[in-house]
Amino acid sequence: MKPFAHFGPGPSQIYFTVEDHLKKAFREGIPSLGHRTKEFEAIFQHTTEDLKSLLEIPKEYYVFFAASATEIWERSIQNLVAERSFHFINGAFSKRFYEIAKLLGKNAEEISVPSGKAFSPNPDVRQNVELIALTHNETSTGVSLPMNFINQFRHNHPKALVIVDAVSSLPYPVFDYSKIDSIFFSVQKGFGLPAGLGVWIVNERCLTKAEKLLADGRQIGTYHSLPFYAQNAKKNQTPETPNVLGIYLLGKVVEDFLRRGIHTIRKETEYKSAILYQLLDNHPLLSCFVKDKSVRSQTVIVADCKDKTKWITDELVKAGIQPGEGYGENKKTQLRFANFPAHSKEQYELLVDSLEKLT
Amino acid sequence: MKPFAHFGPGPSQIYFTVEDHLKKAFREGIPSLGHRTKEFEAIFQHTTEDLKSLLEIPKEYYVFFAASATEIWERSIQNLVAERSFHFINGAFSKRFYEIAKLLGKNAEEISVPSGKAFSPNPDVRQNVELIALTHNETSTGVSLPMNFINQFRHNHPKALVIVDAVSSLPYPVFDYSKIDSIFFSVQKGFGLPAGLGVWIVNERCLTKAEKLLADGRQIGTYHSLPFYAQNAKKNQTPETPNVLGIYLLGKVVEDFLRRGIHTIRKETEYKSAILYQLLDNHPLLSCFVKDKSVRSQTVIVADCKDKTKWITDELVKAGIQPGEGYGENKKTQLRFANFPAHSKEQYELLVDSLEKLT
Repeated sequence: MKPFAHFGPGPSQIYFTVEDHLKKAFREGIPSLGHRTKEFEAIFQHTTEDLKSLLEIPKEYYVFFAASATEIWERSIQNLVAERSFHFINGAFSKRFYEIAKLLGKNAEEISVPSGKAFSPNPDVRQNVELIALTHNETSTGVSLPMNFINQFRHNHPKALVIVDAVSSLPYPVFDYSKIDSIFFSVQKGFGLPAGLGVWIVNERCLTKAEKLLADGRQIGTYHSLPFYAQNAKKNQTPETPNVLGIYLLGKVVEDFLRRGIHTIRKETEYKSAILYQLLDNHPLLSCFVKDKSVRSQTVIVADCKDKTKWITDELVKAGIQPGEGYGENKKTQLRFANFPAHSKEQYELLVDSLEKLT
Repeated sequence: MKPFAHFGPGPSQIYFTVEDHLKKAFREGIPSLGHRTKEFEAIFQHTTEDLKSLLEIPKEYYVFFAASATEIWERSIQNLVAERSFHFINGAFSKRFYEIAKLLGKNAEEISVPSGKAFSPNPDVRQNVELIALTHNETSTGVSLPMNFINQFRHNHPKALVIVDAVSSLPYPVFDYSKIDSIFFSVQKGFGLPAGLGVWIVNERCLTKAEKLLADGRQIGTYHSLPFYAQNAKKNQTPETPNVLGIYLLGKVVEDFLRRGIHTIRKETEYKSAILYQLLDNHPLLSCFVKDKSVRSQTVIVADCKDKTKWITDELVKAGIQPGEGYGENKKTQLRFANFPAHSKEQYELLVDSLEKLT
């Protein structure tokens, strides 16, 4: 049975308007809609334009749809790297991006830091790398990269493309798009939607790079290559039959977010993370996994619970609260709490009250 | 507004139980379900086992989930072909499978026949091809391959893998799986579901081939390579966060189909196609595009309507019937009618009656 509040970091709690949007979609015949119709083109246009407006993305950026962020890891390496990519690894997901580059035969370099730790602020990255891959929010550990860390590469490595995995942080962060060439996320995290859709945002420099790789005779994939995406997006279409319902629902939720206001969403996110971090910093049994406050994630909060993990989980579940498990080797000693727009202030207050009682 | 009956060949009419299954899914928290949970593993197992039971697929075959049949075109060429694939082209979709092989740098050979025509029954295919790609049902033209055509290759080309695109025909056809190594479809056609999920069924020979390509240092992709799919499927899991809701809904619709009985579904399909083909063969204004009865599709029926196409469409739409447009260059002169399990006998009778009046 469904818990009252679901804090797993993705798939996570569904935004409260989604079920109604689905009902309306069925009434309007959206699930049967052909993807080469004027009606679909209008949905594509609405979703991409509203998303750019919500995230304050410059008009000239492209918005493409993939099946998952995992797919975008693969497609971005294929389309943006001839030989050398560079990866900042501080957890399981940033590591997987790197591993995908290796599997695709690239000369992938990396700087790694232990789980939960910050990178040195001035990393040593070689000048000849083509792509710098940054994971804004490491979902496995609850570490976020500071914006000035992300923004330094445009100046220091002007020839490299900068790509940011913002899977579990958007729509919260305010990125400076003049410092970034590509960003991506999947909808089952901060957008409160069922899994099955990844969103890939790229600028013209990315397109140019993919076209150059193609002209040089390199493999950049088939239906989901950047040039083929762009050719279809010009008509507000997709290369293949996409997850039409997913694109429709994303457009509807983005509309809801715009109505609520991105400023309000950001303020509420900060309020919710503040009360949970404060509790964790003062709890007799629990503690924050990420000690350095400057890199604590606002959207995925990780608690060290040690041998109390199972007991705390059971007590929360009794109160109707589903926490997220720790990731990988921390499964039995940590809990993760997603802090997405779908999680209300009241749910966060209930979470904090419930944890406070557990002593 | 939603028409009474939607005959577009995909996305097509949604099976009548889907909306209730969706409601139940939301009540049970399926859209928030993590894909590494026991609950998801149970859904994966249920969907794949029931699907094999419905389609009478041998137990030892694997069932993998992709985003679309388009993705499976790409993944199958990557995983099953070092150098040479062979394609039978009789329309837009079989041609695209071939083009994807070319884009991936393969030495793809082909035999083409004009739209709406049958292949010569004993085609000349070289012995050294690694993969023979057959499109069972060409959605663009309404031509189906006879089963004895498909089944000849195992004997004549024992070393080649045989892959069948059954996108717009399953669950209707009865395949002999001893003659086929891989088959695939997408759920928005014969399974009456919203688009966003492709299903790829492969045998051990396919796995072995992909492993050999990998051992030889070839690129077979990353998260959706056959070995990685298989490694995850052993745990009833997927490589990435998949379309969880899509997999759940597929399992539920397959359950419904099993309850109705595949024999009944097949008989009803044949009844519905028979009354429409009979009408088209005797209509003063309309005619069957496919003249050769031995290759007429049971599941996508194409009518030549010439300069009456727009008028017929308008009249049908007035009666609450949405026909499918002709494909590509035949958009303005043909109509296509999907005949899937979601289309009831009553809807087909209404379609035939409505067309009969148009003289």
